[in-house]
Amino acid sequence: MQIGILIFDGVEEMDFVGPLEVLASACEGRESRVLLIGPSLARVTCEKGMRVLPDVAMADIPALDVLLVPGGSGARMALADPEIVAWVQRVSAGCGWVTSVCTGSFLLVGAGVVAGRRVTTHHRFTDALEKLGEAEVLRGARFVVDGNLVSAAGVSSGIEMCLWLVENLFGAQAASEVADYIAYDIPPRGSEIVG
Amino acid sequence: MQIGILIFDGVEEMDFVGPLEVLASACEGRESRVLLIGPSLARVTCEKGMRVLPDVAMADIPALDVLLVPGGSGARMALADPEIVAWVQRVSAGCGWVTSVCTGSFLLVGAGVVAGRRVTTHHRFTDALEKLGEAEVLRGARFVVDGNLVSAAGVSSGIEMCLWLVENLFGAQAASEVADYIAYDIPPRGSEIVG
Repeated sequence: MQIGILIFDGVEEMDFVGPLEVLASACEGRESRVLLIGPSLARVTCEKGMRVLPDVAMADIPALDVLLVPGGSGARMALADPEIVAWVQRVSAGCGWVTSVCTGSFLLVGAGVVAGRRVTTHHRFTDALEKLGEAEVLRGARFVVDGNLVSAAGVSSGIEMCLWLVENLFGAQAASEVADYIAYDIPPRGSEIVG
Repeated sequence: MQIGILIFDGVEEMDFVGPLEVLASACEGRESRVLLIGPSLARVTCEKGMRVLPDVAMADIPALDVLLVPGGSGARMALADPEIVAWVQRVSAGCGWVTSVCTGSFLLVGAGVVAGRRVTTHHRFTDALEKLGEAEVLRGARFVVDGNLVSAAGVSSGIEMCLWLVENLFGAQAASEVADYIAYDIPPRGSEIVG
C-alpha cells in the first residue's frame, strides 16, 4: 500500500508529521510505505520554519492508495497553483482514501473532490470553508468521514484521524499498537507530576 | 529567548515536531525563537525517514535558554558520540530549562545532567533507563518536573510537556492560545462522526 502526504511551502508542521508518525509506524513490517510528496524535489519550508526534503515529486506519483493533504497557510496558497490542484484532483480520483488535516480541506474543495460532501476543518476556518459553497461543513468534530473522504479538524486531530485510518487499513490491533507506541492514550488531566 | 531542539539521525519525528509546533506557535509575536540544532548543518534523517535540514549546527550554539532533547533510536546512538554528549552537557549547564521527550532522557542521563534527579521516559524504556543507575525513574506520568529538568514520557506527551512549558515561559494565556490553535483540547472519545 502506498500512502502519500502532500507537502508544500507553508505546510503546518504538526499537520503532516503527526499523521506521518502514525501511518509510518503502522507500515513497519508491512508491504506499505508513506511518502512525503513535494511539488518538486526542492526543499519545502514549513509554516513554522522547519525545512524538509520531499521523498518524491508530484510528477512521479500518478496514483496512491491513500492521499493526505495537510493544512497551513500554504494550503490556501496552493489553491492558486494549477499544477498542485490538478495533481490532487487526478490522484484523488483513484484513491481508496482521500484525507485532509486542518485547512488541507480547502485544497480538496478547490480540487473539486468534495462537492456536496461533508467535511470539517480547523475551527477558526469553518466559516471561510463554508463560504466556498462546495461542501457541507461540520463543526465540533475531531474528524468527519463521508464515504472515502476523511477530514480532520485542527492540527493535532490529524493524529486521531490517522489512528482511525490505521484501524481501517490494518485492523484494530495495529491501531492499538501505534497508539501505545506514540503514547496517545490521553489520560485524565492531573497525571503529570510537578515539583 | 532562544529555544533549541537538538536533532540527529534516528530522531523520532513526532518527538521533536510536536514540541516545535507548540513552542514556535508560542514564540510568534514575541522576541523568541525555536531553532532546530543539528550535529552539523548536514541533513538529518529521522527515525521514520523524514529528512530535515537543521537551522544551525551545535558548534554555533554555545548557550540556550531552553534545550529540548527528543528521542528515537538515534538518541541512544547519540550517547556514543562524544561531541554530542559534551555539547548537551555544556549547554545544559547554562539553561533555564533542560527538557527531554521519550528516550531523549537517555542522552540527558549520558551527559550527566540528571544525576540523582527524577525523570521519565517512554514507557517501554523505563527499565533500561533505570539500569543506567543515574536517576530516579518515574513511571506512569505524562511528564516529570524536577527543578529545571522536565522529561516527557512517550512521543505525544512532548506536546503536553511543551504546553506546560509555554505556560511557565509566557503565561497561561499563551498556553491556552496555543492549545486552541493546535486543537489539543482533547474531547471525550466519541466526538468523531463516522458514516
